[in-house]
Amino acid sequence: MLSEFLLTELGRLSPPTSLPLHRQLYEALRRAILDGKLAPDERLPSSRDLVQDLQMSRNTVVAALNQLTVEGYLVSRVGSGTFVSTKVPLRTPPSPRRTSQPPADRLSDRGQALSTRFCASELEIQPFTPGIADFSAFPVALWQRLQNKHWRMTYPEMLDYSSSGGYAPLRRAVADYLRVFRSVPLDVEQVIITSGTQESLELCAQLLADHGDTVWLEDPAYWGAGKAFMATGLKLHPVPVDDQGIAPQPHDQATPPKLIYVTPSHQYPTGAVMSLARRHQLLSLANQHRAWVLEDDYDSEFRFSGPPIASLAGLDTQGRVLYLGSFSKVLYPGLKLGYMVVPKGLADAFKRAHYDLNRPGQMPVQAALAEFIDMGHFAAALRRARQSYAQRRQSLLTALQPCLGPHAQITGAEQGLHLCLRLSDEVDDRALAQRIGQLGLTVRPLSAYCIQRQDVRGLIIGYGYAPLAEIKRFGAVLAQTLQQVLAPRSNGL
Amino acid sequence: MLSEFLLTELGRLSPPTSLPLHRQLYEALRRAILDGKLAPDERLPSSRDLVQDLQMSRNTVVAALNQLTVEGYLVSRVGSGTFVSTKVPLRTPPSPRRTSQPPADRLSDRGQALSTRFCASELEIQPFTPGIADFSAFPVALWQRLQNKHWRMTYPEMLDYSSSGGYAPLRRAVADYLRVFRSVPLDVEQVIITSGTQESLELCAQLLADHGDTVWLEDPAYWGAGKAFMATGLKLHPVPVDDQGIAPQPHDQATPPKLIYVTPSHQYPTGAVMSLARRHQLLSLANQHRAWVLEDDYDSEFRFSGPPIASLAGLDTQGRVLYLGSFSKVLYPGLKLGYMVVPKGLADAFKRAHYDLNRPGQMPVQAALAEFIDMGHFAAALRRARQSYAQRRQSLLTALQPCLGPHAQITGAEQGLHLCLRLSDEVDDRALAQRIGQLGLTVRPLSAYCIQRQDVRGLIIGYGYAPLAEIKRFGAVLAQTLQQVLAPRSNGL
Repeated sequence: MLSEFLLTELGRLSPPTSLPLHRQLYEALRRAILDGKLAPDERLPSSRDLVQDLQMSRNTVVAALNQLTVEGYLVSRVGSGTFVSTKVPLRTPPSPRRTSQPPADRLSDRGQALSTRFCASELEIQPFTPGIADFSAFPVALWQRLQNKHWRMTYPEMLDYSSSGGYAPLRRAVADYLRVFRSVPLDVEQVIITSGTQESLELCAQLLADHGDTVWLEDPAYWGAGKAFMATGLKLHPVPVDDQGIAPQPHDQATPPKLIYVTPSHQYPTGAVMSLARRHQLLSLANQHRAWVLEDDYDSEFRFSGPPIASLAGLDTQGRVLYLGSFSKVLYPGLKLGYMVVPKGLADAFKRAHYDLNRPGQMPVQAALAEFIDMGHFAAALRRARQSYAQRRQSLLTALQPCLGPHAQITGAEQGLHLCLRLSDEVDDRALAQRIGQLGLTVRPLSAYCIQRQDVRGLIIGYGYAPLAEIKRFGAVLAQTLQQVLAPRSNGL
Repeated sequence: MLSEFLLTELGRLSPPTSLPLHRQLYEALRRAILDGKLAPDERLPSSRDLVQDLQMSRNTVVAALNQLTVEGYLVSRVGSGTFVSTKVPLRTPPSPRRTSQPPADRLSDRGQALSTRFCASELEIQPFTPGIADFSAFPVALWQRLQNKHWRMTYPEMLDYSSSGGYAPLRRAVADYLRVFRSVPLDVEQVIITSGTQESLELCAQLLADHGDTVWLEDPAYWGAGKAFMATGLKLHPVPVDDQGIAPQPHDQATPPKLIYVTPSHQYPTGAVMSLARRHQLLSLANQHRAWVLEDDYDSEFRFSGPPIASLAGLDTQGRVLYLGSFSKVLYPGLKLGYMVVPKGLADAFKRAHYDLNRPGQMPVQAALAEFIDMGHFAAALRRARQSYAQRRQSLLTALQPCLGPHAQITGAEQGLHLCLRLSDEVDDRALAQRIGQLGLTVRPLSAYCIQRQDVRGLIIGYGYAPLAEIKRFGAVLAQTLQQVLAPRSNGL
């Protein structure tokens, strides 16, 4: 019986894994296919049957099946169900020749570091509850209609690379948005459409810094930026973050930066909002060192309480701030469109290097997005998303209430799609996150985001993908576990 | 009168420019808008009137208008014509503060190099005749239908980033294609979908080499690869190319490579096809130096005569070759999808680093492409493109016949979308290309692609974008100019 095999497999996995349930089921099913328990072309039980047999939620089952379909283990045939692919990816053992190769033939030192440090698989914030990405609010039909419209009226330039920094109406729409909502003073020429923040960061590092130059970045930090700076050969100088954001100390001046990378709207991952005083201090430091500031304004769209704070770019009078943003949160991650605002005097050089190095394209999608924004759909999607995230946030805050106290405090909940639960220094947050993982919930230990400092402990809890209906229940599980850990004596553990 | 202003502007531009005619018209129109000759919201003459007044081809006029629309200077309103945008990009003068900034605040040395060396604007091969990109053979309606289908059946994973190297059916389709047509032995796990060859190259350099490591590359070379290696901090060691491809000399051994980058199917830009003997020599050198070979198999799809030659990856018995390809030529450049085949033992590390550094996505497009290939449309598009390029190639060869001789020989015409006209060493090919540019034709001087060597002269003539109907006429102009330059005495110049 398939279900029995799966349950055994799941049982076998359960203790040492911190994988969410749908990943566990995915693993068990994949094993069943590779081990031949499920033969090529064999029909799977319906998802309804699997839900019943395995006592899992429909979401969990569907997520596992979808992932296996994306990866080619399963094929779904309309009207007749889901089948094991007849072309299951071959798992041939590595040839002995390759395993006996000396280290010189393997990854370079840089490659070794890039494939093991600051890894998304360990640090990316998403699931909190067992669940899957939820993009159901995204208006797929409308998006399709806009894309079709621009494909219908396409002309040769739209299929080619784009040398002028992106599709002009999209750049104008971005400029308008940033002027009004983020108080960024800019000309549309300064806006460059990129494939997202990673590309923007890499380009800034390549064009503004040389190999071996120093970048100041927050500690704890956004892993993706750390990775981009490593890839471009910069020396990482971590500067501690407090509840007002990055807090440079006198001794940091001894390592003058060429670049300063910050997430002022919602520090990643602590959630601190950079205070106005700190913003001015940072800009003055940047001037003093003739350094460039990279303002990653991620999550600025999702502010739930308090007045919005002007961007660093809006406060900058010296043209030292480069402003970075992306569409991946309000629309969807795989869209691969982001933007940056660069100083006027450097815009042409940036566009030229971007065109040559990255060969930007996707013009029909850029055109659809421009119209999506111009017609007000972006603002509407943002409103919907903000509302939905605010509800999830509120539900999570309520659920966590019982465990809060002097040893567990929430930071960074005014904004963004995750919150940070700060814990006392003596808590082993990695072990705690693992323990919580065994309950089927995915949270991240705050200390894992630290580059150098040893003094912060906590949990990063993402609610962006967590279905509202489940937050209360699983939030309670989380709170209970935390209470057990934080007050071991008082409740006899 | 607008036409008079434009003609004056074009007259003013004409002598010193080597821009194709549609770019000249674009410049003149842009100036008319920025200078206020054309007011915001003013209606332009119809393209038919412009054709008549300016005595230019319809293609030229339409190309200029389209480019201005893409860049936001014009807006087209269905049924009522083309108007000057009311939101013409603002050209504010750079503030004095920025122009007086000391050099330390400008681009880094690396940035300076990246925005000025190996530039597409000077080296990209495309127009030969005044014309524009021609993607009319691409089946837009079918492509739209496939995209719509996959958008309709989309599920959350399709909108997210892709962590497994790309959409499985697309990876399988690529693997099948490469096994059959390029004799590459591979497992589907080794295939990684990237955003194109630039991303593939950068990733290979980042993961397989360290800053300061040496890369051997062909001289003359593909500019885009040079740029990617510069960006990743490699030392460029140029190795001369002869008519059998890259030709390492004994003294090159003194600078051992970590990477060897080659374009064996159709050396860029000379067009030499790497001989089998040279392929074996190169692989043995790679083994000896424990170096990785990056095989950029660009233009392998467009072979017009002679038997296909197995890829380097197909000859490699030591797992040292990484194979790179792209869909930009057979489909369209702005698609932003390419692929690479990496050694089995490194596939997981590559996928991880690729996911973290580049956040690959575009899954609905990947799904549409997979089906496009599986249903045979890719093969059909390739057949059509091959036929159409073969005709253009033949027409160009015929037109150039009169000027060929001991001082002017064609190389690299068996394959690809451009050919190389080798000229005697004493010809100043840069001046010649500029002179031809003044006739409204765009060709590139071969010497501009050289990294170190001084001994090659020629013209790179692209026919990929040249309309078949115009090749004969403009080819004759080209041949005539060449005859004048090559035989200055015999015809009294």
